[in-house]
Amino acid sequence: MEKKPLIVVVNDDGVDAQGIRALASVAQEFGRVIVVAPNSGKSGMSHAITFISPLRLRRTYYSPDMEIYKTNGTPADSVKLAVRHLLKGQPIDLLVSGINHGANTSVSVIYSGTVAGAVEGCLSGIPSVAFSVVNHNKNCDFETAKAAARQIIPAVLEKGLPPQICLNVNIPNVPVAEIKGYKITRQANNFWAETIEMRTDVMNNPYFWMGGSMQDVDTERDTDHWAVTHNYISVHPINTNWTDQKMIKELKKWKLTF
Amino acid sequence: MEKKPLIVVVNDDGVDAQGIRALASVAQEFGRVIVVAPNSGKSGMSHAITFISPLRLRRTYYSPDMEIYKTNGTPADSVKLAVRHLLKGQPIDLLVSGINHGANTSVSVIYSGTVAGAVEGCLSGIPSVAFSVVNHNKNCDFETAKAAARQIIPAVLEKGLPPQICLNVNIPNVPVAEIKGYKITRQANNFWAETIEMRTDVMNNPYFWMGGSMQDVDTERDTDHWAVTHNYISVHPINTNWTDQKMIKELKKWKLTF
Repeated sequence: MEKKPLIVVVNDDGVDAQGIRALASVAQEFGRVIVVAPNSGKSGMSHAITFISPLRLRRTYYSPDMEIYKTNGTPADSVKLAVRHLLKGQPIDLLVSGINHGANTSVSVIYSGTVAGAVEGCLSGIPSVAFSVVNHNKNCDFETAKAAARQIIPAVLEKGLPPQICLNVNIPNVPVAEIKGYKITRQANNFWAETIEMRTDVMNNPYFWMGGSMQDVDTERDTDHWAVTHNYISVHPINTNWTDQKMIKELKKWKLTF
Repeated sequence: MEKKPLIVVVNDDGVDAQGIRALASVAQEFGRVIVVAPNSGKSGMSHAITFISPLRLRRTYYSPDMEIYKTNGTPADSVKLAVRHLLKGQPIDLLVSGINHGANTSVSVIYSGTVAGAVEGCLSGIPSVAFSVVNHNKNCDFETAKAAARQIIPAVLEKGLPPQICLNVNIPNVPVAEIKGYKITRQANNFWAETIEMRTDVMNNPYFWMGGSMQDVDTERDTDHWAVTHNYISVHPINTNWTDQKMIKELKKWKLTF
């Protein structure tokens, strides 16, 4: 009998989010699934890791047909606990992160714990894919995202991914019938216009709450943001090596001498 | 009178670290300095941001000739508080992050709060540079790093940096006289071999502590890691857009259809 692929599922919205259940259920159609996820929401945690305080890890049994663990750590910690502890030494065929409640396009890629989960999988040598749906509602409909995962998971299991590359998939918040197809995209160069609101607590001390809105200044049609706002599923390849080759040439002209 | 450049200084080791004092003192030679930093160490926080809980911000007066603020937030939060609140609407000429106690080369770039500080400055449209010295000791010698900052700060103030590009500077842990010069580098493709040690607490419950060592598998001479281990100061240009252009072409051949 052919061995079933081993698939790790992680997220940043926490182990109880609807999105990770949706993704784990699709992953289970293709292999043996192990879920390791934060015990509470860790949105905006980016690639934070925990090494100056201890991590906890506990199996949870609410889903009898699936191995599910939760941790006090971050999404990246969850991956490390799965790879370096729970599955130590076992070859892992795929890591999927999500399904995130909310888009991870443009600069949100940098802040996202969901994307960091896939990046961390990639750094561990595992073909890794992040999934996000363009809807922040915690009860949003995941059927379209599940349909996309059901196509992308076997494709990545079959073809693999090159070293240092992972995929960031964003799914529009529309029914399956309205999806126009896939677009292979680049990260849009949009940015957040942040607001920092100063409020006063009951002790009369100031505190600050961060908010903002994405500024869609990059209007080209080859971006992740364009794709999802035009009913295409965006597949964005991320390189975990952030070096800018052009700027290397430019900096050499600066002739810095010590 | 010509207006002095406005320079924001941030770090991830916290407002009391020796490294940020060293960097702020050099920055002050070139302009008006505002320090905003975490009130405790935030190593490994990467680009985490705080928007599901409130931020605090408080001026500290231990250094009478400098504006220093501390926050309960992350390095990226510190930048946002400086740019969007303290200096709202004022053009900022430069952001410097560090001097980090410990190298931020290779894959550590992704985990680093110091690098994230510079990336966040870059996302805000400010020419931004991260500085790290290859020594984790909290009382390490910053003279060589200060000498490098004293050259790089005016160079970046004069030349600026292109949009989406920031610099990640790593300084070897050797005296000024032993530095061989600057190398413009790429991020080495090394990785951490992590260990996750399981221990037992006094209640007899397991907890986990993460450790590890960098595996120097990328032995080419054009990397950040090679530079600092051969007494060169590494200047690594980072692009905040993580798209892999080659993989876009490759993925188009997959012919994904929905």
